[in-house]
Amino acid sequence: MRAKTFRTWLEYMQSTERLAVIDKRVKLKYEVASIAKKLDGKKAVYFTQVEDYSIPVVSGICTTRQQFAEALETDQSGLIPKFIQAVSNPLPYRLVDKKDAPVKENVILKNIDLMEILPIPIHHEKDSGHYITAGLLIVRDPLTRKQNVSIHRLQVSSKDRLGILILPRHTFHLYRQAEEAGKPLECAIAIGVDPITLLASQASTPFGIDELEIASALRGEPLEVVRCETVDIDVPAHAEIVLEGKILPRVREPEGPFGEFPKYYGSRSDKEVVQITGITHRNHPIFHTIVPAGYEHLLLGGIPREASLFQSVKQTVPSVKSVHMSLGGTCRYHAIISIKKRNEGEAKNAILAAFANSFDIKHVVVVDEEIDIFNMEEVEWAIATRFQADRDLIVIHGAQGSKLDPSTNNGVGCKMGLDCTVPLDSEPMKYLRIEIPGYNDLDVDEYINQESTGLKPEHLEKNNAASI
Amino acid sequence: MRAKTFRTWLEYMQSTERLAVIDKRVKLKYEVASIAKKLDGKKAVYFTQVEDYSIPVVSGICTTRQQFAEALETDQSGLIPKFIQAVSNPLPYRLVDKKDAPVKENVILKNIDLMEILPIPIHHEKDSGHYITAGLLIVRDPLTRKQNVSIHRLQVSSKDRLGILILPRHTFHLYRQAEEAGKPLECAIAIGVDPITLLASQASTPFGIDELEIASALRGEPLEVVRCETVDIDVPAHAEIVLEGKILPRVREPEGPFGEFPKYYGSRSDKEVVQITGITHRNHPIFHTIVPAGYEHLLLGGIPREASLFQSVKQTVPSVKSVHMSLGGTCRYHAIISIKKRNEGEAKNAILAAFANSFDIKHVVVVDEEIDIFNMEEVEWAIATRFQADRDLIVIHGAQGSKLDPSTNNGVGCKMGLDCTVPLDSEPMKYLRIEIPGYNDLDVDEYINQESTGLKPEHLEKNNAASI
Repeated sequence: MRAKTFRTWLEYMQSTERLAVIDKRVKLKYEVASIAKKLDGKKAVYFTQVEDYSIPVVSGICTTRQQFAEALETDQSGLIPKFIQAVSNPLPYRLVDKKDAPVKENVILKNIDLMEILPIPIHHEKDSGHYITAGLLIVRDPLTRKQNVSIHRLQVSSKDRLGILILPRHTFHLYRQAEEAGKPLECAIAIGVDPITLLASQASTPFGIDELEIASALRGEPLEVVRCETVDIDVPAHAEIVLEGKILPRVREPEGPFGEFPKYYGSRSDKEVVQITGITHRNHPIFHTIVPAGYEHLLLGGIPREASLFQSVKQTVPSVKSVHMSLGGTCRYHAIISIKKRNEGEAKNAILAAFANSFDIKHVVVVDEEIDIFNMEEVEWAIATRFQADRDLIVIHGAQGSKLDPSTNNGVGCKMGLDCTVPLDSEPMKYLRIEIPGYNDLDVDEYINQESTGLKPEHLEKNNAASI
Repeated sequence: MRAKTFRTWLEYMQSTERLAVIDKRVKLKYEVASIAKKLDGKKAVYFTQVEDYSIPVVSGICTTRQQFAEALETDQSGLIPKFIQAVSNPLPYRLVDKKDAPVKENVILKNIDLMEILPIPIHHEKDSGHYITAGLLIVRDPLTRKQNVSIHRLQVSSKDRLGILILPRHTFHLYRQAEEAGKPLECAIAIGVDPITLLASQASTPFGIDELEIASALRGEPLEVVRCETVDIDVPAHAEIVLEGKILPRVREPEGPFGEFPKYYGSRSDKEVVQITGITHRNHPIFHTIVPAGYEHLLLGGIPREASLFQSVKQTVPSVKSVHMSLGGTCRYHAIISIKKRNEGEAKNAILAAFANSFDIKHVVVVDEEIDIFNMEEVEWAIATRFQADRDLIVIHGAQGSKLDPSTNNGVGCKMGLDCTVPLDSEPMKYLRIEIPGYNDLDVDEYINQESTGLKPEHLEKNNAASI
């Protein structure tokens, strides 16, 4: 399994020449993020010398859809079906002894100083400080004992405190329950996990589904987990680093601003606080950072959302072929959907189903099945030649949207849907796309003459001196 | 001058490793077009052995904006300003003696058989037959003696007759005048001209401006032309091949279907006919074919349209920064415009100016000046995060559009404009784009360690055998 652990995945990326090694000394502030962003969509980066830290930093472990597909040992067309399958069929993980868990090779329970130990970068210009961006936050429901896994921005607020943004989802619910009882919510933050577990953490699931069980299902075998030292939480046994702690009740401290996925800043305000109670890590640990709004960040959110969206649309339009949350739409706001239209009007129903799937979805484009929705030039072509705004446009005023979309009024905004499908009753030739017979099967490399000396002498202008 | 002639340009493309040489024998039907399309956006193609023809075929002489910029000896940002400058300041061309004109090296005035002499391809599945697609059609206004230059699809209808589509523009006007007087309209068709002259032929100009004078202005020196043998027309002296002929009055013959720029077929109907009266060509001539709807075709139309659009928008919004007719919009239907907004509402005026510029323009997106409008992912991001359909959308029903857009009702369709500019009164932080200080100046190649042995031994999972 390529992505069995964070390290085996890095080895795989290296073996396929997609790991850039940076031995030059780099700074935590901006330089790590700058270099990773330059290689976004191409290579993972492994920084061996970050300031005076002994711990290397890695960023961009998967920055393309293809790389995520490889991590799941499938191809791009298999990515969403495989994810849906795993979400529908979670597999229990396996608790291992501490002696078998690499993350227990080192245990630190006192004199904790996050910035002394860990090379935590500052990513963007207006960020309030150092942020952990690739930490899986794991909490447990005390009633069901099921865990919940999610990724949060984590600001280093002091030697042993993190500011945290908790959006109103499952973790928020568990924290509120604890806080109302005057108790902290125990948590663990796993840094440096394999890309499968990272992707699984972003699954859109009903409350009570443990994302680590989805990770197990995606792996096809139980993920190995181990119990924490200071909290009642199970964490991936092969994580590079685990921070243990508690989200404190009735404590709020300033957090932000922080550059977020929509490429704008989330604002500064008083937010919840994690008190760190312990750190465990592998020997020679590697620190993983995700550059916010980079492709690693966007796709981690986008692929699981596509799986959820596909299922929502399928309930309304069973002939849905494919869905795509595009990078230009921050993998959240724009959905492109292809369907095999069987009844007139279905494309508009697909638009409505998409809006119902997630309040984050703002604009939807529906096209016919033969359009490659991952090729945005083709999608644009469908908008240009198969859409008429007077009959094919849906606009819905004043709906719930994303609070991080600055064009909304604190999250209240307008939805827009474009039906770019061909009318079922149109003449066959009218919308017939031009094709070159034989094009798809032609291998151009069989034609190009590498040995050729190029233009023949009689075609060189300089051999026709009289003429110029 | 790189693009002094068709041949010097091919030499330049070869010298920059962007000329693919295909020595393998290829067929006129589909195979030439397939291979050229595979290399679209990358390389020009030079086919040395097309069936039994002695004449080679070239396609894709410029298939990127960058390549056109190089032909004009400028960079991408200089392309539109240089074109506008030339359109505003045409330069007379220079008539040379026939003995100094390479295109006169061979003169054929009898027994004309187009398909016997010229390797004219069949491009798309439903095309009615062999089509000349890269011919500059040159006609003369008998009153002013000014010439007009344009590109038309030209179907080989017989040994010496071409079916022609003449859209209602300048050539159409001159032909109608002649036809009403019962006379043919003399014409010449120049094949294998340099990319500057090709681009100039697509300029949006008032009636009476000779596009060859724009070509001269773009070159910075007079284009050399020579008088035809059988008609009173001047043609580029360095053209590879010139067909001379007459568009016959009151003759219509079946033409089409033919795969057109919107990637659909133009339909079959009775159309005008060119009777060929002579052929002249260089020694060892090269035949140029443009694959319809390929980037060469689209950009040839798009760049001159951008120049015209820029000037139209500038009259309404003087702070317009840049305009882009995108490939996904077939370089005709979609305009993206960036402005430095100084007054609220200006973006909508820019949209209206764009619609006024050309009836082909169907959808317009206006963004702030800092958006790179040639990066469609950025444009999409502006739509995702700076646009609200209830306040920022313009829809105009029942306007004149392109007849080749199949979603229109015979050319009558709906316009749509999106204002994606930030409100002038918004709080500065709200729309502040995240930036990494130092990112733009960082050269990542200075960091990547090519000598590195990769992951350090202590980070390889296999060196932690106990752990896995």
